[in-house]
This record gives sequence, C-alpha cells and structure tokens, in this order.
Amino acid sequence: MSSSEADSTGIRRRFVVVGHDATTAGDFGLNDLAGATGRLDILLRCVNSAFLLSHDLRRDTELYLVLLGPPCPPRTLRLVGRELRHLNPDERSTAALLRQALRSPTEGQSSPGIHVKSLGLSTLLETFPNELVYLHENGTDIRQAALSLPTTFLLSDHHDLTPEEEAAVLGFRPQRLRLGPRPLHADHAILLVHNELDRRA
Amino acid sequence: MSSSEADSTGIRRRFVVVGHDATTAGDFGLNDLAGATGRLDILLRCVNSAFLLSHDLRRDTELYLVLLGPPCPPRTLRLVGRELRHLNPDERSTAALLRQALRSPTEGQSSPGIHVKSLGLSTLLETFPNELVYLHENGTDIRQAALSLPTTFLLSDHHDLTPEEEAAVLGFRPQRLRLGPRPLHADHAILLVHNELDRRA
Repeated sequence: MSSSEADSTGIRRRFVVVGHDATTAGDFGLNDLAGATGRLDILLRCVNSAFLLSHDLRRDTELYLVLLGPPCPPRTLRLVGRELRHLNPDERSTAALLRQALRSPTEGQSSPGIHVKSLGLSTLLETFPNELVYLHENGTDIRQAALSLPTTFLLSDHHDLTPEEEAAVLGFRPQRLRLGPRPLHADHAILLVHNELDRRA
Repeated sequence: MSSSEADSTGIRRRFVVVGHDATTAGDFGLNDLAGATGRLDILLRCVNSAFLLSHDLRRDTELYLVLLGPPCPPRTLRLVGRELRHLNPDERSTAALLRQALRSPTEGQSSPGIHVKSLGLSTLLETFPNELVYLHENGTDIRQAALSLPTTFLLSDHHDLTPEEEAAVLGFRPQRLRLGPRPLHADHAILLVHNELDRRA
C-alpha cells in the first residue's frame, strides 16, 4: 500500500453500503429496527464497525449508506469520522441519530458528522475520484491485493447488487476483492477491511 | 492448524468473554441496553459476531459470557451454535433471549442452545481440556501463530482483565495472541479470529 496522504477531505478509507429496502423516512420506532425499517439494522451495525475502535474513533473513515427503500428513494447518509460526535456502539442510539437525519426533508447536516443527500448509487460513485473496490466473494483475496489509499469499498446489505446496479458499478472498473471463504454480513466485512489496512499502515 | 476433529461436543471454536459489570439479573428493560445493564450490549454484539454468517450460523462455535455484575455474580451463559434457534442479528432480540435466561433462578437451558451456569472465570476455564488463547494487544500476531482446534479464545469487555483474573488465566499457560495494531472491541476481535480460522480450514 502506498503511503500517500489522505485526500483533501482527510479521508483515507471510504465505505459505501447499499440498503436495498432501507427506509428513507424518519418515522420509524426504535423497538423493531430489524422488522420495520427495511433492515436498516444492518446499516446501523455498519456504522459501528466503520468507526469504532476500543475507546477511540476512526477519524480517517467515511461511510455512505445508500437507502433505496420507501417512501422517497434514493437518499444517502454520509457519516464523516473526523466530524462525528456522540457516536455510541449500540444499535438503538445510532438508529436515533439516523432517524434524526431522515426527518430532515432537505439535504444538509442533521447532527455533527451526519449529512443527508438525495443521491443514488451511480451518481454517488461518480463523485469519488479514487480507486473503487467491489467486495465480492468471487474476487481476489484482499491479503494478496495491492491497495492504495484513499480507496472506496463498496458493499451490499443482505441482498446482492441487482444486475443493473452491478453493471453500473462495473462501469467504474473496480478491483474485485474477497475477504475470506465464508459469506459475511456487511458490518463484518468492513471490520476485516479495516484490519487489513491497519496492518499495512 | 491441525485438521483434528472437533471434540466430543462438536465444538471447534470456543470464545469466552468476561463482562465485568454485566448484570446477572433478568430484570432489565430493552430500551437502554448500553446504560442499564452493565454494558451487556457489548456481549450482545459478541453473540452476533460469534455465530452469524450471511444467511447461515456457525454451528461449530460455542460462546461463554461470564457475567460479573450485580446482583448475584458470577453467572455464565453458554450459547451453543449447533443448538441455537431464533437467533437474529439485532441487539434487542438477542437481549430478550439472554434476559429470559437470566430470569431463571436455577442452572439449566432457558431456550434452545442457551444455558445458564453459576460459574466464575477460573472454574469455567478448568472445564476446557483444550488449548487456551488469551487475546491481548501484546501477544504474537495471530497470522504467525500455530493454532490447533478445538481452541478456547479468551477476551474481556471494555475493561482489561483485573490483575487477579489475569494471574488466574496465566496459570493455564495460554498462548497470547494479538489481532492487529489497533485496540478493538471484543465483538470485532471475535470476527477477526473467525476469519483467520476460516482461511486455514
């Protein structure tokens, strides 16, 4: 891995997670996050694994959650490590933060480090000038891969990318990498990427 | 890693997590898991990372949660992968399962694959005939380590082991292994162990 500096935003590791059914409204309750939010719970756990170290936060990391569920897709939440405050590891408190963001009808920052945008996947990927990595079980082993930072890592929720989404992603000529021999949840995959990059830093 | 068979219980990977303040009573609500349970939320996330694959469960894994908080420590919950039913990835539903276990005043099975015991850490470790690995930031890199299965991996919650606990653990002559250069949450550590073992299987 090159020791290149972070880009102008200070970001060295960027994750994009597609939530195919994830709610785009802030009207959900906090007591059935796995059932009533289009599996937003998966994305909540991605927030935890993207940013949290023991007694520390990953300031060089940025996470985009692309929400494609009803009622008003697409909406994308951008979480910026060096700006985040009040991020706790539990799902419920993170859900409250994201709900606050989704309650805003417009684009902008809802709380420190959490921004709302009306972007879909392709438009979002076009905004990143850096290398794109598509995490996929048929890819090259990440331990054998050359990686330069900043890099954007793309993951999906409990659904694979649709054929249309995958075609769009392949248009960006991504490196396709796998993390191991078993099929993993998105939040677990983020953890393994971080560990590999930590070891090379 | 040797290709030795699982032990007589079918377990090849065993994790023990010490919850220093974690409640030993089943009287907690589900709406403040990070605040009102002695950080049982950390252990809930360990349940997720110990057992859950994408659309599958790790049947060869066993997890012990050693609860040392009030009112009646120690109590230990044993979760057995090949027996578990109804395990969802979200914290709240797992909390409900563990609460049900803690509501039982006696030892025994509270739901499929979840057992309650009145054991502390040392007594528990004495019951395992296999190799003990103490996950610790000053250990040998796990990628360089020889590992034979079944193995028991010991972790702590947001607190380090106390000097007394560590002295007891060192009496079992554990292999001390680290997972990477950054300090990690216990649930994240479990994920990295699984990935390393998956790659060697």
